[in-house]
This record gives sequence, C-alpha cells and structure tokens, in this order.
Amino acid sequence: MNKSRLPGQKEDFPAWYVEVVKQAGMAEHGPARGTMIIKPHGYAVWEAIQAALDGRFKATGHENVYFPLFIPERLLAREAEHVEGFAPELAVVTHAGGEELDEPLIVRPTSETTIWEAYGTWIQSYRDMPLLYNQWCNVVRWELRTRLFLRTTEFLWQEGHTAHATEAEAREEVLRMLDVYREVCEDVLAIPVIPGRKSESEKFAGAVTTYTIEGMMRDGKALQCATSHFLGQNFAKAYDVTFLNEQGELDYAWGTSWGFTARMVGATIMAHGDDKGLRLPPAIAPVQVVIVPIYRSDDERGSVIAAANKVRDGLAGNGVKVRLDDRDQHRPGYKFSEWELKGVPLRLEVGPKDVEADEVVVVNRISGSKESRPIADAVNGAAAELDAVQTALFEDARAFRDANTFEIDDYASFKSGIDERLGFWTGVWCGDESCEQKVKEETAATIRALPLEEEDPGAPCSVCGKRGTERAIWARAY
Amino acid sequence: MNKSRLPGQKEDFPAWYVEVVKQAGMAEHGPARGTMIIKPHGYAVWEAIQAALDGRFKATGHENVYFPLFIPERLLAREAEHVEGFAPELAVVTHAGGEELDEPLIVRPTSETTIWEAYGTWIQSYRDMPLLYNQWCNVVRWELRTRLFLRTTEFLWQEGHTAHATEAEAREEVLRMLDVYREVCEDVLAIPVIPGRKSESEKFAGAVTTYTIEGMMRDGKALQCATSHFLGQNFAKAYDVTFLNEQGELDYAWGTSWGFTARMVGATIMAHGDDKGLRLPPAIAPVQVVIVPIYRSDDERGSVIAAANKVRDGLAGNGVKVRLDDRDQHRPGYKFSEWELKGVPLRLEVGPKDVEADEVVVVNRISGSKESRPIADAVNGAAAELDAVQTALFEDARAFRDANTFEIDDYASFKSGIDERLGFWTGVWCGDESCEQKVKEETAATIRALPLEEEDPGAPCSVCGKRGTERAIWARAY
Repeated sequence: MNKSRLPGQKEDFPAWYVEVVKQAGMAEHGPARGTMIIKPHGYAVWEAIQAALDGRFKATGHENVYFPLFIPERLLAREAEHVEGFAPELAVVTHAGGEELDEPLIVRPTSETTIWEAYGTWIQSYRDMPLLYNQWCNVVRWELRTRLFLRTTEFLWQEGHTAHATEAEAREEVLRMLDVYREVCEDVLAIPVIPGRKSESEKFAGAVTTYTIEGMMRDGKALQCATSHFLGQNFAKAYDVTFLNEQGELDYAWGTSWGFTARMVGATIMAHGDDKGLRLPPAIAPVQVVIVPIYRSDDERGSVIAAANKVRDGLAGNGVKVRLDDRDQHRPGYKFSEWELKGVPLRLEVGPKDVEADEVVVVNRISGSKESRPIADAVNGAAAELDAVQTALFEDARAFRDANTFEIDDYASFKSGIDERLGFWTGVWCGDESCEQKVKEETAATIRALPLEEEDPGAPCSVCGKRGTERAIWARAY
Repeated sequence: MNKSRLPGQKEDFPAWYVEVVKQAGMAEHGPARGTMIIKPHGYAVWEAIQAALDGRFKATGHENVYFPLFIPERLLAREAEHVEGFAPELAVVTHAGGEELDEPLIVRPTSETTIWEAYGTWIQSYRDMPLLYNQWCNVVRWELRTRLFLRTTEFLWQEGHTAHATEAEAREEVLRMLDVYREVCEDVLAIPVIPGRKSESEKFAGAVTTYTIEGMMRDGKALQCATSHFLGQNFAKAYDVTFLNEQGELDYAWGTSWGFTARMVGATIMAHGDDKGLRLPPAIAPVQVVIVPIYRSDDERGSVIAAANKVRDGLAGNGVKVRLDDRDQHRPGYKFSEWELKGVPLRLEVGPKDVEADEVVVVNRISGSKESRPIADAVNGAAAELDAVQTALFEDARAFRDANTFEIDDYASFKSGIDERLGFWTGVWCGDESCEQKVKEETAATIRALPLEEEDPGAPCSVCGKRGTERAIWARAY
C-alpha cells in the first residue's frame, strides 16, 4: 500500500492505469503469460457488477446454467464463419490423464457451439421455447498484447444464449439485453454509453448483427462495454436445431447471444479515476464509507475508537457498506491516501475534538469537500450523499464525453485532429468497407457504433465523398 | 418431462440416480468425455448452496479473489508430494494462438501452487497475515469413471486458501471452516455428517492433515461432503513464503485450504430422493411451493386462475419461492408427477370447489399428507410448514444413517456383512496401512473418518487384533 506516487493521467495514461490497478490492490499478472490474478478489492467490484446483472437477468425471465469448459474440435468447426473468426485465438488441450487425446479439446472462447448442440436435443416444438439461459464462467482467447482486466488470455464473463420460435421475438430479446447492459453501465457503473450496431467487419463471428454499447475513457479512447448479437438462424442451421412451429411446419430456431465481461472493472477505473487513484461509484464500491480515527495518546484512542464504533454501527444499520480503519501501525495521513487510492467515496475523520463536539469531518472523494457535521447528520445523511456521488460521477463522465465528441468536417482535419484530440468523431459513412479500412490504417480509429436503425444521413461520406448511407462514430479504442 | 417411470431405488440405485438426474432436468453429459451440462434446475440448487457458503465465508472474514485457470508446468512441480498426487489427472494445453507453447500449461486441478507463489510476494511481515481468501471456479481432474455431479473431468467448486503467522491460528482456521461446511450440510442441505480426519493414504496431496465430513447416501454408501486441509508449512517451504514474525525472526507461513464442490448437488439428490424423484430441502429448493390450478371449462379457468394468482402473490409476499404452473397444454396429473419428480416440497391444488370454499388442497412432498385448508392459513402457514419439511428431511436422513451404522464385532462378520448391509461400519484400527489396504481389497470399504482428536480406543484392531490406536469408520464410498 501507499507506495510511490501515481504517474499523472495527462502525462502518461497507460502508466497511470498500470500503477493504479496495482497500487489499489485490484489485480496483478498471473504466472502464465497473459493471465491475471484478481485481488480482493478488484474481485469485490466484479461481484457487485455480477449481482447487478444477475438480478436483472432473472427479472427478465432468464435462468442460469453451466456448459463445459472443453469443446471437442469437430463441434467447434461446424459454424464456418464462427470457427474462422476464433481459430487464431484458441488454446488446445492435447494431453490428459497422462495420454495424448484422440481428439484435441478446445478451451471455450465462447459457448455458442456446445450450447446450440444441446439446444438441438432440447427443442422439438415451439412450446419448448423461448430458452432463456445465461452462464457465468471463464473463457480463453489467446491474445498477444494483454492488459490487466481489458484484455487477458483468460477472462471472466457472463454469456447469455437464447432460442426463439420467431425472428421478431429474437430481435426483441437482443435489444432488451442491450438495454439491460446500458442500464447497468449508466445506473450502476456511472458510465454513459452509446448504443449502436457494429459494422460487418467488427461484428461477432457467426452473428447476423452485433449490437454494442460504447463508453469513453478519460484519455478519450473508446471502450466496447458489452455486446448483444442477433444470430438469426445461423447456429440453428449449423447445429440442426429445428422445431415444429404453431402452424405445424418445420423451421429453424432463432438465436441471440450477449456478453458482459470483467473488463468492465478496468473500464470503471479508466472512466472515473483521477491522479489520486480510483473513484468508485457507490453502487459497486466494496467500501462506501471509511472511518479513520485520529488520536495521539491511549487515552484519546479509547474515546475516539468508541465514537468511531458508534458511527460505524449507525452506518451499517442504515445499510451502508462501512469500514472502520483502526489499524494502529499506520498514521491517519497514510490511511487517507490509501483509501483515496482505493476510491472509497466518503471518508469520515473522528478526532478527540470531534468526539467532544459530537461531530465528524466528512470528506467527499469526488467533490473534494471537507466539512464538520453532527454525527447524527453524517450517519443519517450518508445514503443521500452516496446517491449524490453516484450522480456526480455519471454527470462528470457525460460532460467529459460531450466535451470530447467532435463532428468530422472533412477527412483531412479528422486525420490530423484525432492525434491531438482523442474522443468520439462523428461523421457520415458510405457503408463501404474500403473507407472503414482506410480510416483504420490512417488514423488507427475504428467505427465504434452505427445507429440502432439505419437512416439516411442526407450527406456524403466523410471519407470518400460518395453518397452516405448512415452516420458513424469513429474512435481509437481499447 | 414426465417421461418413463423411474427405476426403483431398492432394485437399482445407480440406474435410479442416472434417471432422476436426467428426468428432473438437473444435468446431462456434455459433448467432451466426462464433462457435464448443468441444467437450470440443477444450477439453481448450486446457486443456493453457493449463497449459503459465501455468506458464511464473508461472515468469518474471508474475501473472494480469482486466480488463473492455467498453471505453468514448472510451477506445479515445486511441491513434490502435491505434483505426484495430481500428475495422473492433469489436462495439458500444449498449443495456443496457432502455435506450440514453449512451456505446457496445466489446467488447474486445484490452485495451491499459483496461490502460494503469489503469497510469496504478498507476505513480508506477520502484519500481512492472516490472508483469508476464497475463489469460486472450475477445476479439471481427468477421471476415467465419471458420474454426473459426483465425478466429472471438469467440476465447479470453491477453494479457500489461507496463510497465517502461527500454527495455532492455522489449526483453528481449518476446524472453523470444517464446521462451516458441517453447518451448511446439516442446516441447509439437511444431510447429517460426521466430521473427522482422513488417514495418511486418503489425505490431500501436500497436506499435513486432511479433515473431512462424511455423509450417508440412501443406498448406504458414504460420500465425502467436503474437506479442510491443514497444510502446515509445506507450501510455504515449496514456494518460499517467509515472513518476519512478531519477534523479528524469519519464519515460514502456515497454511490451510478447504473445498466444497457441486458434487453436493448429487449428494442432496442421493441423500433425500425417493422412488417418485427428488425431495429437495426447502432451504435450497429453487421452487418451494408450486400451485397447480384445476379446471375443465374456460369459465372455471377464469376464477381458478384468479384465485391461484392471489395465492401466489400472497406467498411471494411472505418471501416464499412460489411458482404458478398455469401451462394449458398439460393436465393436472402430469404436473403433479413432474413437480414431485423435481422435488418441490409443497404443492397447492386449486379447483373450482376450492375457490368456492376459499380453500386450497395442500400436498406435502415429504410426509405425503394431503388436506384442504383455508387459503389464508395456507399462505401464512407456508413458511412454518417449509421449516417442518426441512427438519423432517434431516431427521429422516439421520434415522436412516443411524439404522445403517454397524459395530464391527470381528473381521469375518464385517467382511461378509458389508455385502448385505451397506452403511458405516465402526471399529478399531491399529493405524497400520497394511490393515487399511487389506480391508480395501477384501471389502471395497475405505476408512472414511478417524476421530477429530486421536484417542486410545482401549481395544484391539478389528482387522489384525494388534493394539488399536483409534476408532475408524469404514464404508464403501462414492
């Protein structure tokens, strides 16, 4: 704890990220290349995110299941576009139980293949649908350049997989779950996001359409926060999932899949953090209020700790996640820095004079305000103040995003401008992959999102000047 | 659903188990050998078990973390006894990202190795301890003979790993967690268990002492419900985890590890099920009360469904997990069998005459009682009746265990008796591995548990007649 100072965000954002993840006790690298160890403070944030998502999945009628880690090679190979997309990233078990396996086993990069194979035996009639299933698990995608939380060879996520009797129902599900993701990002993680479609080149291998929500980090780079895929009948055809519809005709089932990963712990760090460390939204902060007792003598210690205990019990009784930091081996100043680094929204300081006045000093991690308040007010007002912090973080992130969203006037100024001003660059696209590719090569920006519904922009392509077919948001991205 | 009849437990217990797991929608085999797909009803039971354990882990000061799936081969090899114990069961990734790896990666069979490697960098002083960490994850052990839930190549579990500055503290932790496991088995799963020590030949590879809780299934076989290991300084020495103690001297850290797996879903099935299917303890039943409406005409349907909805809302308002089965395509009798099969503790039947009398018929899955009751009584009495079911299941299982626990009079009668009377056979052991081995070969029974504390039995070994050193429980086991 309380090691060296953090690098400044403005000076070196990547270095700031690496250090804050490490110093705040969020995560570190594992012994195998590209893997990570999620430490208690980081895992507690992930648990809070899981709870927020899982409750919403269940409220929308989904149930949890668990499919195997290992996929026989032949099974994965069935959906051609899918296997082609994932082939370069697969990890393969060739030996087990001291012997070479007859058939190699793929460590799942995602589970459409095993799940649709099972759906083939579970679905006979339209009455067997919808199947609304989700699983919480680890997946493996062999990445060369890794970064803690954001891109690791193994990562934690949830993957939802649904099967429907009609196209309309599947399309509705895809957007319902995209909206659940939007709600969790905005209301829980306090990250404003833009929902949209991915271009053909950016979509999930095997999907008809991939929907996304895109957030902006504090260096102006975009981060894909979650995706929801309309699979059409692609997997049903590859895995022969047919059913008798209401009219008694044989048809293929319609599918969706959608995923949200622990990279969002990293996104939360990068969307809200500052030069002092994390700033965690109260909705997911493992500790919402920390109490730091201040004393010199043993005599002072007794009355201060007694008062601090009372404050702690009062807050806990009000449902606040509170921690009393009564470690003797550290000074208050050390503790202040440590809890600022760890992003705790509110700090209460209790010293001998506070005890006499029946007050505490309340320090707000986000606004920086510091003021004495009667203990009763601090205890009973904490929930409201935490709500205000949650809102302030969201508004702050939204203001930052708005200030860093630019209209593309012409391609030349976009190309030169993005080097100085990272952010969302909105313009018009002709729908041609060659323009998308050209922008990627010349600016390192990709199309992050197209509007949910195609609509004529009534203006020429910002890149080639030909007829535009829709508006696009370009950005450099994680 | 509602397929063929189940095989009788008495006639063929293994066949009964396979069929009830399948027909109740708990799980099925996955496409890769030895893997399993946990279906919604089975996974919901596991989620309830997870919640029961996780709450108790946190209440005893533990935090969750996540360590990687892959372990570099060299790392695993460091604790000699540990690697020797697990070597025959390892699955190995040799290729990833389209290339052969320089060093093969082991898919974790358990995580002591990566965790103690990390502890080496996290622990410098006695002040850094205790580390009280747990993780929820999947592990892989290549088993040749697999059985759904009980023994699969991949399985879900939690593994706790703690480090302590003193031996006394570590020993206390081992028994604390064993008792948490006992409490969850008995109070939540309604499975009475016997806590004890494992013999040297049955202990965890790398442990000084392995503690166990052993339950009895309804065929009289034993099942190891969970284990808690005192690791001494074994892993600290292998991974060089030293610290400065309070006296300023360098010492090795003391360790524990403890695990509870999803096999306990299978154990719950086998400890309580009957010829009609599952009997789920209310504390973990995904559905505690099912309401089945009974009607002939559309007219009847209207009033019956309206009453059923009212009952459902009343129960839900009382915190009961309730499901109204209003499917039109199935008759009531079909639904009765299906929910009996799925082990739902209470069934409420609502027909037109019940509606008129403001009553419901309450059917108890465990006692078999069936009686009409005023709706208000049924709604407000459900929680108490569920508690009674929970207690009845536990008492039933305990009575079964007691009736199937036998004292070994002499070795010959034990040897012939165990073929007819499966159960716990208690006797005296001289502590010699050759006697243990002889019993295993001649009766297929193993020592399930030795007393928590060694104590002189004051009687000769039941096997060889030499001086006995402690009492032992022998049984055939899963």
